[in-house]
Amino acid sequence: MPDLMPPTDRTSFQAVVGFRSSAPGTHASGSEARRALVLQRYAEVRAHSLDRAAPLSAEDQCVQSMPDASPTKWHLAHTSWFFEAFVLVPHCTGYRAFDPRFFRLFNSYYEALGPRHPRHQRGLLTRPSSAEVLGYRQHVDTALVRWLRGCSDAAWATVEPLITLGLQHEQQHQELLLTDALHLLWCNPLLPVYAAAPAASVAAAPRPARPALDPLRWLRPNAGPHPVGHAGEGFAFDNEGPRHTVWLTPCEVAHRLVTCGEFAQFIASGGYQRPDWWLADGWAAAQAGGWQAPLYWLRADDPRLPPLASPASGPGFASAGVDSAAVDSAEWWVFGLHGAQPMRPDDPVSHLSFYEAAAFAEWASTQPGMAGVRLPTEFEWEAACGLPGMKQTHGAVWQWTRSAYDPYPGFQPNPGAVGEYNGKFMANQYVLRGSSQATPSGHGRPTYRNFFPAGARWQFSGLRLARDATC
Amino acid sequence: MPDLMPPTDRTSFQAVVGFRSSAPGTHASGSEARRALVLQRYAEVRAHSLDRAAPLSAEDQCVQSMPDASPTKWHLAHTSWFFEAFVLVPHCTGYRAFDPRFFRLFNSYYEALGPRHPRHQRGLLTRPSSAEVLGYRQHVDTALVRWLRGCSDAAWATVEPLITLGLQHEQQHQELLLTDALHLLWCNPLLPVYAAAPAASVAAAPRPARPALDPLRWLRPNAGPHPVGHAGEGFAFDNEGPRHTVWLTPCEVAHRLVTCGEFAQFIASGGYQRPDWWLADGWAAAQAGGWQAPLYWLRADDPRLPPLASPASGPGFASAGVDSAAVDSAEWWVFGLHGAQPMRPDDPVSHLSFYEAAAFAEWASTQPGMAGVRLPTEFEWEAACGLPGMKQTHGAVWQWTRSAYDPYPGFQPNPGAVGEYNGKFMANQYVLRGSSQATPSGHGRPTYRNFFPAGARWQFSGLRLARDATC
Amino acid sequence: MPDLMPPTDRTSFQAVVGFRSSAPGTHASGSEARRALVLQRYAEVRAHSLDRAAPLSAEDQCVQSMPDASPTKWHLAHTSWFFEAFVLVPHCTGYRAFDPRFFRLFNSYYEALGPRHPRHQRGLLTRPSSAEVLGYRQHVDTALVRWLRGCSDAAWATVEPLITLGLQHEQQHQELLLTDALHLLWCNPLLPVYAAAPAASVAAAPRPARPALDPLRWLRPNAGPHPVGHAGEGFAFDNEGPRHTVWLTPCEVAHRLVTCGEFAQFIASGGYQRPDWWLADGWAAAQAGGWQAPLYWLRADDPRLPPLASPASGPGFASAGVDSAAVDSAEWWVFGLHGAQPMRPDDPVSHLSFYEAAAFAEWASTQPGMAGVRLPTEFEWEAACGLPGMKQTHGAVWQWTRSAYDPYPGFQPNPGAVGEYNGKFMANQYVLRGSSQATPSGHGRPTYRNFFPAGARWQFSGLRLARDATC
Amino acid sequence: MPDLMPPTDRTSFQAVVGFRSSAPGTHASGSEARRALVLQRYAEVRAHSLDRAAPLSAEDQCVQSMPDASPTKWHLAHTSWFFEAFVLVPHCTGYRAFDPRFFRLFNSYYEALGPRHPRHQRGLLTRPSSAEVLGYRQHVDTALVRWLRGCSDAAWATVEPLITLGLQHEQQHQELLLTDALHLLWCNPLLPVYAAAPAASVAAAPRPARPALDPLRWLRPNAGPHPVGHAGEGFAFDNEGPRHTVWLTPCEVAHRLVTCGEFAQFIASGGYQRPDWWLADGWAAAQAGGWQAPLYWLRADDPRLPPLASPASGPGFASAGVDSAAVDSAEWWVFGLHGAQPMRPDDPVSHLSFYEAAAFAEWASTQPGMAGVRLPTEFEWEAACGLPGMKQTHGAVWQWTRSAYDPYPGFQPNPGAVGEYNGKFMANQYVLRGSSQATPSGHGRPTYRNFFPAGARWQFSGLRLARDATC
Repeated sequence: MPDLMPPTDRTSFQAVVGFRSSAPGTHASGSEARRALVLQRYAEVRAHSLDRAAPLSAEDQCVQSMPDASPTKWHLAHTSWFFEAFVLVPHCTGYRAFDPRFFRLFNSYYEALGPRHPRHQRGLLTRPSSAEVLGYRQHVDTALVRWLRGCSDAAWATVEPLITLGLQHEQQHQELLLTDALHLLWCNPLLPVYAAAPAASVAAAPRPARPALDPLRWLRPNAGPHPVGHAGEGFAFDNEGPRHTVWLTPCEVAHRLVTCGEFAQFIASGGYQRPDWWLADGWAAAQAGGWQAPLYWLRADDPRLPPLASPASGPGFASAGVDSAAVDSAEWWVFGLHGAQPMRPDDPVSHLSFYEAAAFAEWASTQPGMAGVRLPTEFEWEAACGLPGMKQTHGAVWQWTRSAYDPYPGFQPNPGAVGEYNGKFMANQYVLRGSSQATPSGHGRPTYRNFFPAGARWQFSGLRLARDATC
Repeated sequence: MPDLMPPTDRTSFQAVVGFRSSAPGTHASGSEARRALVLQRYAEVRAHSLDRAAPLSAEDQCVQSMPDASPTKWHLAHTSWFFEAFVLVPHCTGYRAFDPRFFRLFNSYYEALGPRHPRHQRGLLTRPSSAEVLGYRQHVDTALVRWLRGCSDAAWATVEPLITLGLQHEQQHQELLLTDALHLLWCNPLLPVYAAAPAASVAAAPRPARPALDPLRWLRPNAGPHPVGHAGEGFAFDNEGPRHTVWLTPCEVAHRLVTCGEFAQFIASGGYQRPDWWLADGWAAAQAGGWQAPLYWLRADDPRLPPLASPASGPGFASAGVDSAAVDSAEWWVFGLHGAQPMRPDDPVSHLSFYEAAAFAEWASTQPGMAGVRLPTEFEWEAACGLPGMKQTHGAVWQWTRSAYDPYPGFQPNPGAVGEYNGKFMANQYVLRGSSQATPSGHGRPTYRNFFPAGARWQFSGLRLARDATC
Repeated sequence: MPDLMPPTDRTSFQAVVGFRSSAPGTHASGSEARRALVLQRYAEVRAHSLDRAAPLSAEDQCVQSMPDASPTKWHLAHTSWFFEAFVLVPHCTGYRAFDPRFFRLFNSYYEALGPRHPRHQRGLLTRPSSAEVLGYRQHVDTALVRWLRGCSDAAWATVEPLITLGLQHEQQHQELLLTDALHLLWCNPLLPVYAAAPAASVAAAPRPARPALDPLRWLRPNAGPHPVGHAGEGFAFDNEGPRHTVWLTPCEVAHRLVTCGEFAQFIASGGYQRPDWWLADGWAAAQAGGWQAPLYWLRADDPRLPPLASPASGPGFASAGVDSAAVDSAEWWVFGLHGAQPMRPDDPVSHLSFYEAAAFAEWASTQPGMAGVRLPTEFEWEAACGLPGMKQTHGAVWQWTRSAYDPYPGFQPNPGAVGEYNGKFMANQYVLRGSSQATPSGHGRPTYRNFFPAGARWQFSGLRLARDATC
Repeated sequence: MPDLMPPTDRTSFQAVVGFRSSAPGTHASGSEARRALVLQRYAEVRAHSLDRAAPLSAEDQCVQSMPDASPTKWHLAHTSWFFEAFVLVPHCTGYRAFDPRFFRLFNSYYEALGPRHPRHQRGLLTRPSSAEVLGYRQHVDTALVRWLRGCSDAAWATVEPLITLGLQHEQQHQELLLTDALHLLWCNPLLPVYAAAPAASVAAAPRPARPALDPLRWLRPNAGPHPVGHAGEGFAFDNEGPRHTVWLTPCEVAHRLVTCGEFAQFIASGGYQRPDWWLADGWAAAQAGGWQAPLYWLRADDPRLPPLASPASGPGFASAGVDSAAVDSAEWWVFGLHGAQPMRPDDPVSHLSFYEAAAFAEWASTQPGMAGVRLPTEFEWEAACGLPGMKQTHGAVWQWTRSAYDPYPGFQPNPGAVGEYNGKFMANQYVLRGSSQATPSGHGRPTYRNFFPAGARWQFSGLRLARDATC
């Protein structure tokens, strides 16, 4: 598989950007140091997109597996289009487009910027090729960096927020690039591997047959008035503000995520056959989609698996009242970035829809010692996020909350076309909090509001339980 | 058109129920008075369902115009099934079903009670006939009233809440009966009339060509912690509780509803052609459905209208900063229970989806003096409901709020199968507050939470504006 | 259930038409006799439509069970519309329409006559009521008969072919009225009965447990050049001509239809599980529709059946090489105009799609002594129709042929709008020959070409086998 | 764009196959000469598939533009699978599969050979890569050629027909490879070019502004009994036989194809707005698909076209009674293998559905001197094929006939799984005769029966007119 941007090219790209390995800002005025810092950040983020695409062939990068997903190549082009559309074209006099037709091809949903290529046909764009898209990226990078280094302070003040927004936007697409590529590989009966498993996980040193249990503990945020939302320092998306007060009813939030082993118990209890545990829309979706397990789970006898499957065994629901021995985890494998692997019972369960998360919680509330458990609201999650003992808030899986994605009081979208970003999707979506293994490093925040429709399953999405404090 | 229950029958029915015109409870013990009161209420509510069906022919009562709607006959049968399934069968020893097959035919969505007739095929049930369904109602009424009058106090204590719930349930279906029938009549190019217009509206006395303006006034509920939800006295649905505290950010709520004239301005401003005013899902729904106006609006040159249309003129957006003269209301007619009528600019606009309500608010916020207007949250609405000067909270149209239909903290569905009522629909729906012209008298409450999907347009649904207090 | 046209009304209607029980034409000139004959025929055909509707309630007559079917009321109105549109409006000066809006409501597919009510929404027309539609029929009948009795010979010569065509058209709708109504009743889990079973079939005299076999015999039409198509005498549709020569390859045609018992053997042999016996489109249709048997067959344990089902037994494939004992016919019931009845093995199988007929023939060709059997072409069928020993050509079920519905050489549609009748459907349809138990008496002919899409199952449609003569 | 099989590889591949440029068979026995001839043919056909793929990038070769089309890579693999499945696996002891999983991936519709990868998901197979598929082809070629050169005469006699069938099958896919790739390129708003236009068409030498007319001439095949179908010599598909007699009614067939200029007249006459010229299904398809012209036609102001469009002008309907001057051909461009080009009025019209061809003929019959023109039947076409003066029977466009794709009398599919080829598609398809510019050289025959559903437009499909001789 080709590395789409050879190391030499990447070096010369960084030469254009002009940062060095020495710490930026040491020999410059505050303003220059600020520019250098932003430009270094720009170079790093832009390069990381290519790193994520590197394991994928040109064919992999071109195909769209479903209307909700986009091709890798499209992500790479669209994130460049963002800088072109919002910075270069409006602000950089004399900028010449790499190809004016790309302006329409790689717009996503900004109605204000004119007609777009239809979303469900992104996978038909075999041209421009991956190589041409890399050329487009380099063209944008070169033009942008040159201009940014030379522009006036006034111009800089105008565009710096757009650069920052563009990089945050690119990081969001970096996550989608992975989840979309994983879905494509999943659709292939050969179950191809995105990246070889890290050495540790295939090492000779055997994993313990039964990892130490981590029984559920309940953490209690302060009840009553509670400030939520982003408070000024550092970047945040418009949908995280304004910071405001909510009133928290007494509650407890689980200190860890729900595990694969626990979810396997739900399945074994008939979770996918019992409508009374499901929301009405969820049951309809499960029936229509033939859901029997999380999206990427396979039964051990699935013909797509290699013949000598030797699954791990492990604990079930590791809480006081739940008998984990009842679960035979041997029957499940899980497909992921490293290909299909035996299900590991202590891993956080992932690739759930909101509906499955809610049904799991409903079932769990029928288990001994678990009365009243449910999904947390997004504010309960946020209030509990920094409590001592709280684990797995970031870097594992996004965590469905019971909160519909509604605007905060006083919410104002960003002005102009970049405002077509978060606000226009505030209907029929649910909030996920935290971040996942696919989230770029440093992109998460306690106030971050991710959102997807209730039926979406192809993200790294799981859940954490909560309950009323008086239960 | 036949009156499906002749007056004589209705009288004998009331004889079975046994109430008299004398005030109930005057000559009985407290417990007996209570029974008499409930039975009188039972008789009234049950009779009112028949009153609503009376203007409709057997053919009208049989047909289903879309999967979301149900035939009148089905409403009449299903509301009887409720009493049979939840009271007579479990509690009344010796009860003999009118027809055991109806148990499956007229179940709606109670998964716990076994298989159901598919919702979208309710209109195929030409048998049982309307006459047979009336017989079914009488059978249930007779059996239930006889049993209720003779049952023990303990049994009464058990079933009284179910009777009350069943009557509230029937009132909900009374509203749906009307909205569903209106949709059916709308699908007929002859635009039949459900009921002759009340004398007042067709009287010789001319309506003023331009009614007195009622300029928008803004009422301000107290900010900070605020109790919401039902507080114990009288009946409420499970989704109205528990009563709890929310924190209100300072806001203002309009003292009246948005009018047809104002909505016509939105249309005239290109409201249905401008994606930037719409939520993304809303724009998609509007395009897919070809929406150009509220559901039942017709242009004056529509071939379905009678030839000599002479529409009224009237005011537009009756607020300080909006020029109402710009609106030519002459072009619109509105279909309703009295058939097609010229649009009356001062009537509350109705038959909007949540999407249209939200788009209207977005447009309105661009009008002079209207910066920042938006939909209220359901709690802002509730807090403002009883404020002095507040108008049209009940009896006109349901009012879309910006609140997704999520459970209250500590929400518990009713136990048993009757609990499959509100909680299982808490996804992908938005809350409407107030009540409409189709809501049975006495059915509304300030804490009432009606809910529909964001694209639903066939209810009597409109909007009231709000804004942040600091705007 | 109301008889929608009481006997007294029918008598007065016949009084308007003016014929008497005495033989027409005996006391009049040839031309007058001809008019009298046509008017008598008109009265009979028009009355027969009402006879077919009589067992159906107003609700039954209003509902549309699927887009392919039309409500009874629509059939009654549309057949009247035909006379209004093609005779009264163009030819009868001074004719006043019953309701001008019906012109659009009851047009079927005549594009030349302007916009139509959408086909799939015919069932939403609860107004006009059945009673009003009867009034419409009487209005048309009265106007037409009055005018026909007084019009000039020249006018008569012009319209007589249209009257004849209109009556043939009405007879076609009489058949559809029955098949569409039967489909509606089938969609009702109560399985209502259109008409009580004829006395003979429920009589005390027991049917023989095992009827006399009627083993297949093969009849051989002359090979070589063969004239086909209608030859002038009497009425025929345009698609039956012109008469022309085809060249017949030597073949043999079965003397009787395939029976239910034989088809049950196909099912028992895995007929609905074996793609190799099916056309590719047929297999796809069977999978998509979940087909497991002919449309109206029910397994004996179907919950819709009455509890005490006591099915008949009977023979299987009654040919030399097929072991009929292998079939357990006890497991099937068949729904029909008399409700659900135990399957009778010697009845012709009915309610098959072309695909099922073709798959059956493919399976049958694998049975001993049946090598090479297949469906006949429409010309083989026509050539064999009158051969000595040929049975069940008319009055049982329509018989799928292997012939696509293509135009004959020299085919010319009727001129004008009435020409939008047969020719425009000559794509993606297959020819059925013969006639069925639902075909009005006297409507069939050996040259008659009925046609339906290959997946249509709601007609009385079965099959007759054929084979090459040299096999 | 990479040439996926470099010249050196192709040479070594031919070395494996072992043929030389010297004429085969000169120095060998008859049997050996026969083998050499077949092997040479094998090498040529297999290499030609790669030639057709060569202009396409790996990305182009991977994507599927619609369910009806397949990716280039899939065609290349599936045609290899054919030899593996029908020759190597059953006959060549010791054959080791390149990858056993390909057996399922690259099966097309042979139900007898087990489960298949779903047709509409062929484009999701980014793995195996194009390079791996080329490896698969070479693996199959090497194994097959080695075995064929050494196998016994008896084995040769068994497999030679399968080799021949496999090569004919591959030629069919060569045509589909082109038409499917063209459709993919069409879906790209950049309108990429498959192959640079041949020098002649872009030369400085100007094309004559108005080419010489070729007025329609009518050729008359003999009427009466006529033998049709394949008669033994050389290869033919099973659906071309058996040869048999049909009876031809006197007719005339046009000596040339309908041109683009003539079709533009149809459009200008409102052809796509007049339902009376269309079959009912055709009108529905045209409305549903928004058809306004043949599939690949663009108006000159289409934003996808280069700015300086300078279209050709040219003649219209070049027959006696048709005024060709009425057509402004300047408004149309046509997309094809050489990209978008101004429409050339004298080119045969292409990329029509059967419905459009039939509607054109209906319209043409209303033009002066053209009364009664229509599509020919497939037998009229075959009878006229070799007549003196007949032009454009092969190599231009496939020609829709008025004949549904029904089996010939006595038709027998090939035995075994290869028989799942033509017969199972004999429903809902129409016969096209001749061959197209995309048909591999030598693949056509006068008896060849191509077939597609009536709505298919992405083939090189046009039409030739016919009429009854007595008109």
